[in-house]
Amino acid sequence: MNSNRVGKQSVIFHTAPRILTSAAIAGDMEGEGPIGTYFDMILEDDTWGEDSWEKAERKMYIETVKIACDKAKCDYRKLDCLLGGDLLNQIISANFAARDLGTPYLGLYGACSTMSESLLCCAMLTDGGYLTQSACIAGSHFSTAERQFRFPLELGSQNTATAQRTVTGTGCAIVVSGDNEQKSSEQNSRIYNTVHIVGGTIGKVVDMGITDSNNMGAAMAPAAVSTFTGLLADFNKTADDFDLIVTGDLGRLGGTLFCDMCAELGVDVRNKYLDCGNIVFAESQKVDCGGSGCGCSAVTLCGYLLKRMEEGDFKNAVFMATGALLSPTSTFQGESIPGIAHAIILERR
Amino acid sequence: MNSNRVGKQSVIFHTAPRILTSAAIAGDMEGEGPIGTYFDMILEDDTWGEDSWEKAERKMYIETVKIACDKAKCDYRKLDCLLGGDLLNQIISANFAARDLGTPYLGLYGACSTMSESLLCCAMLTDGGYLTQSACIAGSHFSTAERQFRFPLELGSQNTATAQRTVTGTGCAIVVSGDNEQKSSEQNSRIYNTVHIVGGTIGKVVDMGITDSNNMGAAMAPAAVSTFTGLLADFNKTADDFDLIVTGDLGRLGGTLFCDMCAELGVDVRNKYLDCGNIVFAESQKVDCGGSGCGCSAVTLCGYLLKRMEEGDFKNAVFMATGALLSPTSTFQGESIPGIAHAIILERR
Repeated sequence: MNSNRVGKQSVIFHTAPRILTSAAIAGDMEGEGPIGTYFDMILEDDTWGEDSWEKAERKMYIETVKIACDKAKCDYRKLDCLLGGDLLNQIISANFAARDLGTPYLGLYGACSTMSESLLCCAMLTDGGYLTQSACIAGSHFSTAERQFRFPLELGSQNTATAQRTVTGTGCAIVVSGDNEQKSSEQNSRIYNTVHIVGGTIGKVVDMGITDSNNMGAAMAPAAVSTFTGLLADFNKTADDFDLIVTGDLGRLGGTLFCDMCAELGVDVRNKYLDCGNIVFAESQKVDCGGSGCGCSAVTLCGYLLKRMEEGDFKNAVFMATGALLSPTSTFQGESIPGIAHAIILERR
Repeated sequence: MNSNRVGKQSVIFHTAPRILTSAAIAGDMEGEGPIGTYFDMILEDDTWGEDSWEKAERKMYIETVKIACDKAKCDYRKLDCLLGGDLLNQIISANFAARDLGTPYLGLYGACSTMSESLLCCAMLTDGGYLTQSACIAGSHFSTAERQFRFPLELGSQNTATAQRTVTGTGCAIVVSGDNEQKSSEQNSRIYNTVHIVGGTIGKVVDMGITDSNNMGAAMAPAAVSTFTGLLADFNKTADDFDLIVTGDLGRLGGTLFCDMCAELGVDVRNKYLDCGNIVFAESQKVDCGGSGCGCSAVTLCGYLLKRMEEGDFKNAVFMATGALLSPTSTFQGESIPGIAHAIILERR
């Protein structure tokens, strides 16, 4: 048996599965943000003509998969598998999308870490020869998340200074075997010729005792540190070996904590670090500490970063979506907030 | 690259990962049922000394993993990965258990299909060389599920005739590489020498329009039929090729529907079919249509079936836990109930 395990919690992909295409749909506020022009579609109305936000979120899932498949010129009904999840109770957005798409389906729950959990699982299953062409999906919706996790929007409650805004958006990446030969010679083709997943690190749940569910960035930062330092140790690398280190939705406070905690461990990430929560919205957009939600890292990766990578702006990157594994029930019962981060290593080949 | 894909939605494991040990903890009513003597521990008090049922459920997760690891003489802190989920919003039982156990963790959501989803994913990742020794876990708790999905228990509401009782119980299986040489010569050893996972089928979400959340068996039966007939087609097998065909928690009505729907497709499963929901409780136990919940198939597989297989009572089996992918929100919004079933093929070697 071929061992693809590296160190204590990492894996290496000798066949380097490729991200063939990706797509992102986002809400209007995200569309007005710094990377808004990169998205495939911007919603003008956050119900998208449906009679509930939950149904709109589901429609975003379905349409994002279809757009990504259209770019790859593949029939979504012929996908080997859909891997994904969302923030709603019992991940109904992903479940109902999988029903309507009709593909084999593996439902995941990693809270806001879902985009990297799905890519990591999919890359392992593709590298291992169990899947050949699959879709990874994650997303969130501001209005469904607010009423499930915080307060009814109608209440007009005020945010705390450390709060982050849940991104309305879904991102989907089509992952194919490394030996898939579908390439494009057109410059503005919607097919990536060069973006491969070469390894990854399975996250551990880390809980430093933060109990404020309006301070998720601080709750999740230690998990990102744990995964990133675990990755460096397992692959015997330093931060200098990567052009870009990306976290999912730590936001302004959490991102600073991530850099500081890394620095305390002798790992300097400051000149190559980016948090999706800090670039999906501009500071002027009144989003307190930045963006959050499954959709935050999903639209940033699938809308913006992969395209930047294909264009040659960076050679490799560590992408770590970060998740806070609480529920309203666990918070009501006095529990602190556990965090997790899964990492994939992207490489331009 | 080695292809491990078979047909449209199935996978084959050339290295045949082994289930090394398993463990099950169950509630008192489950302990009084037909397979109660097989469980490793029966709870006398369904709070297990904790101050909430949710915390008791979490404790069951943690202790079940520890018992399974003890049997395998492995340190749970050295597991490559914990794969699992539960029914609670944001799968907090699995999340917090993963925090306390400290292992790398992949959170899954497949509702009551979680036991086979985790075993299927783990078998793929183990066969592929990404994991060498991991724990798969699923479980549920009657009292946490009732108050989240139905009514507060204090209300004393009556069940409908098609309702099933959520099993209080957790099951954990330790999966190791097929070439793992740890065997035991003692007859009553708690290590299985012979139980391998040789293949599996990734389920599709199937929805036949059932909207009664007190009739989950009927909602899930079509998904089990879809997966089972998909498996037979992909592997070019007939029902006669298997000694035992197991579904997760279709219950009395759903189980009958499964057999009838298979028969309509020319597949006769009747003399070798078993539903975990029908054997975890006796008919005399006033559980209406039988058991349900993630824990139903988890304790039946991990407590009873694997031991029966190790003892030579059957040579191979298809195990399909079945999940209803609804949420209270989707029901309130008038949606029908989508179902899913993932299958693994167990073989005595």
